[in-house]
Amino acid sequence: MSTQAAPRPATARAYPNIALVKYWGKRDEALMLPVAGSLSLTLDAFATTTTVEVRAELTADEFSLNGVAQSGDSLGRVTKFLDLVRSMAGSTQFAVVTSINEAPTGAGLASSASGFAALAVSAAAAYGLDLDRPELSRLARRGSGSAARSLVDGISVWHAGDGDGTSFAEPVEAPEMSMIIVTVDARQKAVSSRTAMRRTALTSPFYPAWAPSTEQSLAAMLEACHDRDFSRIGRITETHALRMHALIQSADPPIRYLSPVSIAVFDAVAALREAGVEAYATADAGPNVAVISRPEDAQAVAEALAEYGSVRVVGAGAGAMLIDPDDATPAEATA
Amino acid sequence: MSTQAAPRPATARAYPNIALVKYWGKRDEALMLPVAGSLSLTLDAFATTTTVEVRAELTADEFSLNGVAQSGDSLGRVTKFLDLVRSMAGSTQFAVVTSINEAPTGAGLASSASGFAALAVSAAAAYGLDLDRPELSRLARRGSGSAARSLVDGISVWHAGDGDGTSFAEPVEAPEMSMIIVTVDARQKAVSSRTAMRRTALTSPFYPAWAPSTEQSLAAMLEACHDRDFSRIGRITETHALRMHALIQSADPPIRYLSPVSIAVFDAVAALREAGVEAYATADAGPNVAVISRPEDAQAVAEALAEYGSVRVVGAGAGAMLIDPDDATPAEATA
Repeated sequence: MSTQAAPRPATARAYPNIALVKYWGKRDEALMLPVAGSLSLTLDAFATTTTVEVRAELTADEFSLNGVAQSGDSLGRVTKFLDLVRSMAGSTQFAVVTSINEAPTGAGLASSASGFAALAVSAAAAYGLDLDRPELSRLARRGSGSAARSLVDGISVWHAGDGDGTSFAEPVEAPEMSMIIVTVDARQKAVSSRTAMRRTALTSPFYPAWAPSTEQSLAAMLEACHDRDFSRIGRITETHALRMHALIQSADPPIRYLSPVSIAVFDAVAALREAGVEAYATADAGPNVAVISRPEDAQAVAEALAEYGSVRVVGAGAGAMLIDPDDATPAEATA
Repeated sequence: MSTQAAPRPATARAYPNIALVKYWGKRDEALMLPVAGSLSLTLDAFATTTTVEVRAELTADEFSLNGVAQSGDSLGRVTKFLDLVRSMAGSTQFAVVTSINEAPTGAGLASSASGFAALAVSAAAAYGLDLDRPELSRLARRGSGSAARSLVDGISVWHAGDGDGTSFAEPVEAPEMSMIIVTVDARQKAVSSRTAMRRTALTSPFYPAWAPSTEQSLAAMLEACHDRDFSRIGRITETHALRMHALIQSADPPIRYLSPVSIAVFDAVAALREAGVEAYATADAGPNVAVISRPEDAQAVAEALAEYGSVRVVGAGAGAMLIDPDDATPAEATA
């Protein structure tokens, strides 16, 4: 019987975020520093709930995702992240990581963002680190760049920063908006965004223009958020998203993430605008399309897009946070 | 009864061309000098047949297209072009221009290329100008940039040149290939390529990289043609085409020429390659897709793509030339 206090398991929940100004390209792969800042909406759906339990008797980390024991790259990324947490905490003990992810993995719903945000918060607590929000955002960033933004409620700006210490996300005041997620194809995508980022950086003639262009879009977006100008936010969102896909498509060999149905959704969104409903489309590195609208238009937009795939209306969600382990059931009873 | 020899009408026939390395962007709008060189295949279908008859009694040019008297911009472009021919010929007489175009107008089949190539050859003859091929190519260029290439048989390189005198097209030796034209949407396109070129130049952050990238693609393409390396020709063609569409899509507001069906054709072409049939896709400023293959594969490619639209297998055609006016019936009995 040990007299030491047993390490306490910690459970955290985080949500994915969808960027309105995208993160595409790293300037430092080890520190996960982006080539430019970005801005996103943290969602109130598709949660990842993760429990980390440090156990003295383990000889290696264990990681289960949706009830399936992980190995290989999937376990490797978690272990590498925990190594960083352990180095900060001065610990050499391994942990059991149990994660439930309510979004389809690898289909462009940024599950690595919610995953590493939840892991950052739960692991920091389990290893006894006392970190503030910017520190947790910086930590999450090391697991997956866009995870930095899932530490923040609602609209979040991730500063490119001038180094590890200044590259974190923080909240931005913005008008309320809804997001209509159109899942057009839930299959695993053909080229991972990690591979695609590298190929884009190495082969696209347009890549040198990308970072300055993104910083310009971000500056305009921050102005539009400050002015509560939803129309301008929407226009910047769609133009910027199409630029990111243009950049990716310009790689050699080309990478095309948008499927025929994705393009049909962009067309339908343009038709909605012509009919007077302000909706604007964006898409991450996959075929799904996320559409923003004013909250009062969301239902009409969802109905108009229902023919293209499974449609889900979401809103602004909370940044990653610790929860009572007894609540570690899925956030959505219907999911 | 005049004792002067009556001016003789002249009739010319020209075919459109589809670029494998695209022309997108002018460095001089008045002289129609491109920002970079380009390379195309002159087709053996979709002819334009044009007769120019100079008549002393006219007080203005007349232009009929497919039997319909033209006015406004359509007539204006022809008159402006004839003004150039008249200034070269020292003539002040107007002409009747009668043109039959066997391709759908404005649907991305480059009918302005065949149109101005046929007009250049017929007008030069009707006004008594004795021009060689490079001079005719330079003249056609002034009507519509890509028309410069329709003066050349088969594969043609249009040199950017260092001025009017050196910006013309000439033949390139290359392996034989077929082109499968998939007409997915014959409606008039939403944004003219002229407008789109301007918007791209003014608003795309990627535009400064476009001309050097095109020149690189062209140099690689000329090597591949010289080596009779069809696979490399194909890869450059598809990568370059997707880059042009990426560039156009990066304009603000974005311009998307590829429709859902166009993307489905690109996907089907990729699937053909995976199945061992070497086909490569390109598209001009519209939704139609042109696919190149070795001649022996053309029928299989055409069959695989028939579900996406009307499909036509074409080959290398002749550069614009004078024909006997008695032959000025449509080139294709079935068209």
